[in-house]
Amino acid sequence: MDNIAKKLLELVADWKGEPTKSAFNIREDSECAGRQNTENVRIESKTDRPGIDIIVKNNTKGEKIYIPALVTHSGVKDLVYNDFYIGENADVTIVAGCGVNSDGCDGAEHNGIHRFFLEKNARVVYVEKHIGMGEGTGERIINPQTYIEAAEDSYMEMETTQIKGVDSTKRFSKAILQDRAKLVIKEKIMTHGKQYAETSFEVDLNGTDSSAHLVSRSVARDDSKQLFLSKVNGNAKCAGHSECDAIIMDNGCVSAIPEISANCVDAALIHEAAIGKIAGEQLIKLMTLGLTEKEAETRIVEGFLE
Amino acid sequence: MDNIAKKLLELVADWKGEPTKSAFNIREDSECAGRQNTENVRIESKTDRPGIDIIVKNNTKGEKIYIPALVTHSGVKDLVYNDFYIGENADVTIVAGCGVNSDGCDGAEHNGIHRFFLEKNARVVYVEKHIGMGEGTGERIINPQTYIEAAEDSYMEMETTQIKGVDSTKRFSKAILQDRAKLVIKEKIMTHGKQYAETSFEVDLNGTDSSAHLVSRSVARDDSKQLFLSKVNGNAKCAGHSECDAIIMDNGCVSAIPEISANCVDAALIHEAAIGKIAGEQLIKLMTLGLTEKEAETRIVEGFLE
Repeated sequence: MDNIAKKLLELVADWKGEPTKSAFNIREDSECAGRQNTENVRIESKTDRPGIDIIVKNNTKGEKIYIPALVTHSGVKDLVYNDFYIGENADVTIVAGCGVNSDGCDGAEHNGIHRFFLEKNARVVYVEKHIGMGEGTGERIINPQTYIEAAEDSYMEMETTQIKGVDSTKRFSKAILQDRAKLVIKEKIMTHGKQYAETSFEVDLNGTDSSAHLVSRSVARDDSKQLFLSKVNGNAKCAGHSECDAIIMDNGCVSAIPEISANCVDAALIHEAAIGKIAGEQLIKLMTLGLTEKEAETRIVEGFLE
Repeated sequence: MDNIAKKLLELVADWKGEPTKSAFNIREDSECAGRQNTENVRIESKTDRPGIDIIVKNNTKGEKIYIPALVTHSGVKDLVYNDFYIGENADVTIVAGCGVNSDGCDGAEHNGIHRFFLEKNARVVYVEKHIGMGEGTGERIINPQTYIEAAEDSYMEMETTQIKGVDSTKRFSKAILQDRAKLVIKEKIMTHGKQYAETSFEVDLNGTDSSAHLVSRSVARDDSKQLFLSKVNGNAKCAGHSECDAIIMDNGCVSAIPEISANCVDAALIHEAAIGKIAGEQLIKLMTLGLTEKEAETRIVEGFLE
């Protein structure tokens, strides 16, 4: 693993590659660059197409699983299918960041199609960090797709972050929830330059007392553009909440098109969206504390994206 | 004018047809059933297509103008183009309700295409009540389209109400606002039986300090369906707010698809939507005061729709 791969690994998975007891699979330029199983977590290569199956045994508690994907140079167009089977009562954290580095005029692209099958009462925290780097002129592209089937009483939390360097991204997440299943998605996006980012959520609240809480926070700087789509279908007694807050700066443009559909009288659905620039009073307050305007802006954006 | 027409007139325009000093034009089954001009308000039939021009002189203050349209029996499919020219500094109220009565198996339908041209600093309150009645099995259909061009410093307030009897409605409203122009839309809809109601707002906030405030409140009962669409484009320093609150009862279904697009860094846009049934606590509170469940529901719905 060269320095670029090591740097990407650290950025997307907070991991320097040192020995670990956790299960992991490192994908580098469409090849497997390392894998480790544990007693409870088995990772297997798919035989019919690129990708892996990650099988978590029933009742597995507290394990962390690393599934980073790296594209280290231009001209690579990676496509991978990863399926996660999470056993009953399991409670795990999955870190599945993706880093793309472009060093030439060709693009560097990663397309990850991830499916999650949560058995009854399973609990997953899924952390996905996307980052682009390198001096090449080729586009850095990351298009993640996530499908979630959540059985009774299961819980899925998805934290996705794309802070810099990705020129184009289309992110699609779809979830189907059974009785008392709960989905939480927290998305943070910052675009700059001429970048484009599109997010699309689709959630079917099919189970009694199922619930979804979708929160997107984004910042669009320079000439970047963002599109936020979400669709929450309340098909049972359920609760759905979707929220899109965006800060625009410079010539940034953001559109939000959220849809809520109540198809059952016991569905309760709420959506909120707000798009605007940083409030002048906030800037002035920080500037009276001695910060320059640029520093104040940076501080506010950092706070907004946490 | 027969009793049905008189009844419709009273329902949609709160007017029993008694002498008035106001300007008015009564459209009945695609014909003109009465017209009156005033010194400041001139109403003229169009020569190229069905409909009228309503011309309000500059500086006209405090006049009320009645433009009701009535379809009194089955088999009538009315189409009308009404253009309103509101002079500089004018301040008027326009009452333009529409009533359709079906007494047979054929439908009774009214399609009104209304255009408003507000000159600088003009101010219009536009009240539109839609109602269907009669014992016929034919569908009562009302499809209003409203186009608004609002010049600098003008103000347009649109209050539309459709409480009962309309089997199908598609309501489209589009507005383009110049500097400091302000648009307020307050919509109230209740559907029952197998009725369908669709609302679509599209607002271009093109002028500096222009603003829009769109509020839709609706109740879907029985097997009725409603679709709410809105699109607010912030193309300048502007403020846009759109809000959709819906109560669902029985098997009623409501979808809301609001879009906000900030194409200028100084655009501030907000959207809120909430769909759900009447909260149990609200019902119980009123029932402890001695109301039956049905009475409590009715009271809450009335309050919600004001």
